Amino acid sequence: MTAKIIDGKAAAAEVRARVAGIAAEFARTTGRQPGLATVLVGEDPASAVYVRSKGKATSEAGMASFSHKLPDTTSETELLHLVDQLNRDDNVDGILVQLPLPPQIDASRVIAAIDPAKDVDGFHPMNAGRLATGLEALVPCTPYGCLYLLKQELGSIAGKEAVVIGRSNIVGKPMALLLIGESATVTVAHSRTRDLPDVVRRADIVVAAVGRPEMVKSDWIKPGATVIDVGINRVPTEDSKSRLVGDVDFAGASERAGAITPVPGGVGPMTIAMLLRNTVVAAHRRAGLSDPKGV
Amino acid sequence: MTAKIIDGKAAAAEVRARVAGIAAEFARTTGRQPGLATVLVGEDPASAVYVRSKGKATSEAGMASFSHKLPDTTSETELLHLVDQLNRDDNVDGILVQLPLPPQIDASRVIAAIDPAKDVDGFHPMNAGRLATGLEALVPCTPYGCLYLLKQELGSIAGKEAVVIGRSNIVGKPMALLLIGESATVTVAHSRTRDLPDVVRRADIVVAAVGRPEMVKSDWIKPGATVIDVGINRVPTEDSKSRLVGDVDFAGASERAGAITPVPGGVGPMTIAMLLRNTVVAAHRRAGLSDPKGV
Repeated sequence: MTAKIIDGKAAAAEVRARVAGIAAEFARTTGRQPGLATVLVGEDPASAVYVRSKGKATSEAGMASFSHKLPDTTSETELLHLVDQLNRDDNVDGILVQLPLPPQIDASRVIAAIDPAKDVDGFHPMNAGRLATGLEALVPCTPYGCLYLLKQELGSIAGKEAVVIGRSNIVGKPMALLLIGESATVTVAHSRTRDLPDVVRRADIVVAAVGRPEMVKSDWIKPGATVIDVGINRVPTEDSKSRLVGDVDFAGASERAGAITPVPGGVGPMTIAMLLRNTVVAAHRRAGLSDPKGV
Repeated sequence: MTAKIIDGKAAAAEVRARVAGIAAEFARTTGRQPGLATVLVGEDPASAVYVRSKGKATSEAGMASFSHKLPDTTSETELLHLVDQLNRDDNVDGILVQLPLPPQIDASRVIAAIDPAKDVDGFHPMNAGRLATGLEALVPCTPYGCLYLLKQELGSIAGKEAVVIGRSNIVGKPMALLLIGESATVTVAHSRTRDLPDVVRRADIVVAAVGRPEMVKSDWIKPGATVIDVGINRVPTEDSKSRLVGDVDFAGASERAGAITPVPGGVGPMTIAMLLRNTVVAAHRRAGLSDPKGV
């Protein structure tokens, strides 16, 4: 069996096009564009790249992008002051504070200071709790993107055996809660799981989010399973360069799976698409409009 | 194999005795008793019994019990007004609004109005989110009581395969999050699970919380497993009376399990014990004291 390759780039482009349409309609209705504020503290080059591409995607979707860049000597108080300003700014619908933050700043305190209605990363405990209890929430972008790909691929997920490898607050746990909400039978596995190959073998759906290159072996994959690979790991190549690989042995697994996301070009592009999606949804809710359809 | 019967009554009595000691120490330190306010709306006889026994247990533990009884014609606004008063009352450390509420009142709006620091039921989305993200939380009493029994029985749970049957906000989902926090490999099964017997058979730990009498059959239990039965179902007997049974076929399962909770006398008594525990913990946090040890 050769797996269907799930094209995350194409799916993300579709979502972004729909978001752009919704943003334009929102601007016509309310007289202003939905707005996303990004906050970058310090000079981490990877973070700078992420923030820049988020800003660019925001503008391309016809939304206002507010970019805040602070030195890496910024104090927690100064950052909290900026968050407070953004909370009060009516043109800002979404606030994204790029992680990691410098060591003098407690990230959990900063996240808790963001207005949950503007928490487009979905990291605020209030949004985590609303997701956990089945209330309307802003959901973390990466697992929401994974769910989008799964539903596009499979239609209904109800009754399927899903295994989530990894239990982070950003991917593993919200992914499990989303899958439970879709009526899958969900197992959360992690570094302490005794027989991971055996646990993965029973899964119709595998979501790998551990950050270890090609850790999930092809013979762990149940034939026909749908495999979503969240990992993005840079590994050295023989010619002293490097390449990106996922958490799954893609070459082997794509011989057994029914469908699989590649790395790059799978889950990655969905994360930014869902950030834009969360921003237009936050804009609608803040404006007292019902949620936009189709995203 | 004949299972060890896990004595929830004895465990609950121990917790309550320790809570009483902590409450007395708190009163010596702060000059006031920890206080729990209960709110009962309407005349539901079962709810009245629950609230009365919670109030009695509160007093027995040396804590202040504030009982509020409202007619079943109470409006949502009136109930929210009372919650607001209790939020502001410095002698009240815990607020318990007994569910269910009459149909004119939106329970989720009432729960969201309780100060999360006083939410000793652990139902507020903020506490659900703090539990989900591994922050300090007030945890729902029933799953917390189940975890207490499991840790008392097994010591470490890390690496064990746990299956939670049921995905409610009150038991199933918080139970799963607690077990993930203890590094178990956790599966959440429910009514849409395809082959429930097969899923249960792989579990070292089974937590049954479905509310269906004796639904979990003895031959689903892996020999030696630890079985926690959250169900309390009243079923008719041949002599036209009734008896209480759990969600697990206790007679059969106790021939296979390593340890099992009975119904009644298992999880039930732990729920009130953990309510008292949450109340003294809330009192300490509100007073700026570190969490009490041993509960």
